[in-house]
Amino acid sequence: MPARRTIGVDLGGTKLLAGAVDPRLGVHHRVQRTVTGLRQRALLDVAVDAVAEARESAGAEVAAVGFGLPALIDRRTGKVVVGVHTPLANLVFADVMAERLGLPVFVDNDGNNSALAEHRAGAARGVSEAIVLTLGTGIGGGLILGGQLYRGARGGAGELGHMEIDFDGNLDDDNCPGRGCAEMFASGRALEREATRLAAERPDSGLARALATGRTLAGPLVTELAHDGDPAAIEAVELIGARLGVVITSLVNIFNPQVIVVGGGVIAAGELLLAPARAVVAARTFPFFSEELRILPARFGVEAGMIGAAALAYDGLAELEAAAR
Amino acid sequence: MPARRTIGVDLGGTKLLAGAVDPRLGVHHRVQRTVTGLRQRALLDVAVDAVAEARESAGAEVAAVGFGLPALIDRRTGKVVVGVHTPLANLVFADVMAERLGLPVFVDNDGNNSALAEHRAGAARGVSEAIVLTLGTGIGGGLILGGQLYRGARGGAGELGHMEIDFDGNLDDDNCPGRGCAEMFASGRALEREATRLAAERPDSGLARALATGRTLAGPLVTELAHDGDPAAIEAVELIGARLGVVITSLVNIFNPQVIVVGGGVIAAGELLLAPARAVVAARTFPFFSEELRILPARFGVEAGMIGAAALAYDGLAELEAAAR
Repeated sequence: MPARRTIGVDLGGTKLLAGAVDPRLGVHHRVQRTVTGLRQRALLDVAVDAVAEARESAGAEVAAVGFGLPALIDRRTGKVVVGVHTPLANLVFADVMAERLGLPVFVDNDGNNSALAEHRAGAARGVSEAIVLTLGTGIGGGLILGGQLYRGARGGAGELGHMEIDFDGNLDDDNCPGRGCAEMFASGRALEREATRLAAERPDSGLARALATGRTLAGPLVTELAHDGDPAAIEAVELIGARLGVVITSLVNIFNPQVIVVGGGVIAAGELLLAPARAVVAARTFPFFSEELRILPARFGVEAGMIGAAALAYDGLAELEAAAR
Repeated sequence: MPARRTIGVDLGGTKLLAGAVDPRLGVHHRVQRTVTGLRQRALLDVAVDAVAEARESAGAEVAAVGFGLPALIDRRTGKVVVGVHTPLANLVFADVMAERLGLPVFVDNDGNNSALAEHRAGAARGVSEAIVLTLGTGIGGGLILGGQLYRGARGGAGELGHMEIDFDGNLDDDNCPGRGCAEMFASGRALEREATRLAAERPDSGLARALATGRTLAGPLVTELAHDGDPAAIEAVELIGARLGVVITSLVNIFNPQVIVVGGGVIAAGELLLAPARAVVAARTFPFFSEELRILPARFGVEAGMIGAAALAYDGLAELEAAAR
């Protein structure tokens, strides 16, 4: 009989990704749902249904469920505090889901889960000091310090997209009270904005032609055009990469890490994004910090949050079992 | 017979402060020396002499010496890596001093030592998650995470003055390859620069009158004028305080700490500095982060580095004794 499994669920603002995951963090069955615009009750129903499907196809006993949310979660009360793209504020999410699922449920911020996945079995495996940045619509993050996920006083640590890199800058456009936040300059949304600007400046570019056909210059399209060699698209990606390098420079001076892992949708640009980031970090930090630093793409890509949620569930189970002994 | 003591030495770029310190971090004898412009050999001689004086007047057996340097120190090799204002690069400082002093010697970055002092017996006492910012000529820092000083992969963590808060900004003017570093905007040097600018704009201000008498608008003078009620001096301090608030905003989003401690010479401005910093943090962060956060002046002022160096020596002794058992 195979070892038991946990189900990891990454419940984002637009989609839900669930998977039945074994103790080595191999994924055995995947479930995906679109959740754009759902209100709380419908969203919870979709999550319950997705977990049920993953459980039926898990191929082994499912012992617990882990969730990742794009939200701050108060570790002391379990309450969802600020859900940027998710209608779950004030819900004690784990308790509600545990009751509906009849299984132990654990929940954390999606950036923390991604960091957990990359540390346990991904690009930061075997490393004790690692910072994970997730470049999606906004920027999320997670901190591995001394070999453990660092959560701060109440569970809010790792909001790396809200480092302010333009101190006299504009209000963040993501429901955040900050100004000049990193995610305004180096996220997928920023890539779309810069690509749209470049398309207007370069009517002969691939970007401009794509725009002229009525398409939106969203991150995946810009990345595709950059990989195809369109100079304007490459310039847009490189600009985001250079600004990512500024964020990493600060993180390097703050943490002196061994590894920085870059994940999220924008990392589909690969070296087009990371090469300019590395160049900025090399130019702006002392060799003491940068000479042994590795800046790596995430291993798990869009599945990092889901796999990390499953790892969170294994950790939670281990704690429950230790407490019961 | 009184308990044993350690000697803490804060060896800055312009002066050395040494003290004989008891296990509760009370200071029993102080020694001060000017070290501006000294080369390595002379600097080491002054340090040896200062320790000898503190040792003679310690009133108890001295068991070890701790040093703080304004430098990066490689924890694996013990080498001083980058000494911004100190001619100690490449020296294995602790070994050299242990040989000359005939005592166990421990060394760390001055910002780390200040954090240690404030955590053990100062403004961050009893708190497990605290960030210490030291606003002197530049900006130093130290991180207390999970109740312990966090040093990163090689010992370089906590260089909070080199968070980049103006990502397209100018080169740092402090021998640092960074651009738009926090210390260019919120340090004692920045206070002097802003006060000098305001003096030129306001010929009737106290700042302008002080400048006209041939004085330099260094931090202590600007602070004194601000405390005396000169509106231009107050404006200069408040501007630095607001920018300090930007730095703290980022730190709050990164670490979700319980306490931020602000020390160094600039904290002589007290609430004139901290009130605008708190206002910026309250405006720019979610209540989840800010509602339980305390932003406090350092307890130990200019002695934090020295007292922390003594605490470092006690920690080092405890490790030596544990290893010998």
